[in-house]
Amino acid sequence: MKLAIDAMGGDNAPGAIVEGTVRAAEAFPDLEFILVGDRARIEPLLSEHRHIDILHTTEKIEGTDAPVKAVRSKKQASMVLAVQEVREKRCAAAISAGNTGALMASGLFGVGRIKGIDRPALAPTLPTIHENKGFLFLDVGANAETKPENMLQYALMGSIYAEKIMHRSNPRIGLLNIGEEPGKGNELTKKAYQLLSEAPVNFIGNVESRELLQGPADVIVADGFSGNLVLKSIEGTAMSLINLLKETLGGSLYTKVLTGLMYGKLKSIKNRMDYSAYGGALLFGLSAPVIKVHGAAKSEAVFTAIKQAKLLVEEDVVGIIEETIHDKDHTWLNSKV
Amino acid sequence: MKLAIDAMGGDNAPGAIVEGTVRAAEAFPDLEFILVGDRARIEPLLSEHRHIDILHTTEKIEGTDAPVKAVRSKKQASMVLAVQEVREKRCAAAISAGNTGALMASGLFGVGRIKGIDRPALAPTLPTIHENKGFLFLDVGANAETKPENMLQYALMGSIYAEKIMHRSNPRIGLLNIGEEPGKGNELTKKAYQLLSEAPVNFIGNVESRELLQGPADVIVADGFSGNLVLKSIEGTAMSLINLLKETLGGSLYTKVLTGLMYGKLKSIKNRMDYSAYGGALLFGLSAPVIKVHGAAKSEAVFTAIKQAKLLVEEDVVGIIEETIHDKDHTWLNSKV
Repeated sequence: MKLAIDAMGGDNAPGAIVEGTVRAAEAFPDLEFILVGDRARIEPLLSEHRHIDILHTTEKIEGTDAPVKAVRSKKQASMVLAVQEVREKRCAAAISAGNTGALMASGLFGVGRIKGIDRPALAPTLPTIHENKGFLFLDVGANAETKPENMLQYALMGSIYAEKIMHRSNPRIGLLNIGEEPGKGNELTKKAYQLLSEAPVNFIGNVESRELLQGPADVIVADGFSGNLVLKSIEGTAMSLINLLKETLGGSLYTKVLTGLMYGKLKSIKNRMDYSAYGGALLFGLSAPVIKVHGAAKSEAVFTAIKQAKLLVEEDVVGIIEETIHDKDHTWLNSKV
Repeated sequence: MKLAIDAMGGDNAPGAIVEGTVRAAEAFPDLEFILVGDRARIEPLLSEHRHIDILHTTEKIEGTDAPVKAVRSKKQASMVLAVQEVREKRCAAAISAGNTGALMASGLFGVGRIKGIDRPALAPTLPTIHENKGFLFLDVGANAETKPENMLQYALMGSIYAEKIMHRSNPRIGLLNIGEEPGKGNELTKKAYQLLSEAPVNFIGNVESRELLQGPADVIVADGFSGNLVLKSIEGTAMSLINLLKETLGGSLYTKVLTGLMYGKLKSIKNRMDYSAYGGALLFGLSAPVIKVHGAAKSEAVFTAIKQAKLLVEEDVVGIIEETIHDKDHTWLNSKV
């Protein structure tokens, strides 16, 4: 299996990207890699690796670029070429830590959607406080406008992913909403509730944002606008609180001793809250695995995303989603195709 | 000035409610109170107070009651009678820790809306990490369906509150959104952005949920659905993290010493994150001050809410909102009246 890696995307590129890839090449001798990017910057970071090739390009999409425009005009950008490797079947999956919108556009133009999926979703795995198991959260912002039917498709895709990749049997699907009772919410979530109730998934009902980190479900379905707000408020609150605690400790008389003792604890909590350690966010609904790694990702997250891509391909998650959607029994979904 | 207090609402009623009221009666000798509820349960908690009367009733709205139905059928409920004291001008403001939806319905049926305000909003003050100043956040769920025009009205009301009650000069108004750039968001936030840009407030643009606790604005305007999700994810993340930290510390070899040293720190952080300490959530847009105290509120929060009510009446915030909305220069808003 060969994977295409955008070596130039994200805040820590190409260093963290190359380092994570080298680690993965050592850990999984059956994998091969194409690092796409500036050879002059990548090569010095690579000790010789039989399983890592470089596809040279100096063009690159910036974090600030307008996604669609950038993908259309920068045809030799590292991200665009990485996705093209998948489109032309030389690679089985693509990974990038670059501009999320541009990666989605590259994916849509490059490999296209699974037939029957109207809108791909951005789907990271978030940690939970106690079980260290995490839950899949989609959509967290691939689409600002969402229809109930999109959320039904997210639920279906999420359920398959949770079973095949996260190894949850009969995965629990929850709907992000502003109350637990069935009639709660806005027009969108009320309709989505109805559709999910009739879908062939283990739908457990509405879940409030307050409960998320307690792990009430294996998959949380949200419209992209709400999912993005909630994801970022979890991140922001966790980081603010941890920084506040560090400062509070730093001001104590017992600074040295306490800080030393606490540092390890804080770090482990911070890591548990850091969803990049849970791998990348899949662009769910594209007809081949394309994974978005957090822009601030270090080599560890790149390594995890590569493991995730390997599993996605081995388990043929995209193929199973396609089959499920076209299964004749699912007239509720076939009617949309 | 006389205030009506629903003695029976919330998890800790009537104990915490009566205790908070007694403290306020001692702190502010110019205030008078009517505690509405079961005399047999309230009286034993009251040492004699010249300034506290009891309005006896045994009927009560439960947290699980359907709001509108409850308000219509339980005409002698403590919450309903408290609002009625305001309607009939015997009291200047009402405070309750009971069912939020029912309090909104009591307010709408009882005192009505400010002319020109289509939908009242629920508006708590949230803490920020560093400055300990807090920001007003509205709407956090009074309305599940929101129009751009509602959000314009929230901005106007919030700006007046921030200036008069929070003492911020030229208060900064931010719009909760999924990106900072002007074109970001869904249809609703894009239209709201446009309206806020033209409004006579100090609009500073979009604010992402990740930034909220850093205090980027004095007032954050949101549709009620998004506001509710974000409020609860901030609460849930903060509480989860603090509990995790406590557990982590509890497992340490240095348990006793560390826990002792840390406990004060943790508590101060927890308090800073606990928005009930910032007073109640105003039901913004009603034609008299009605304040919702957190259901889990202790006497401290009741005391703070009473201080807040006092200031609201003294500063005539409702009157200023009415004037501002009817000011002839504000044709953009008058057109809605």
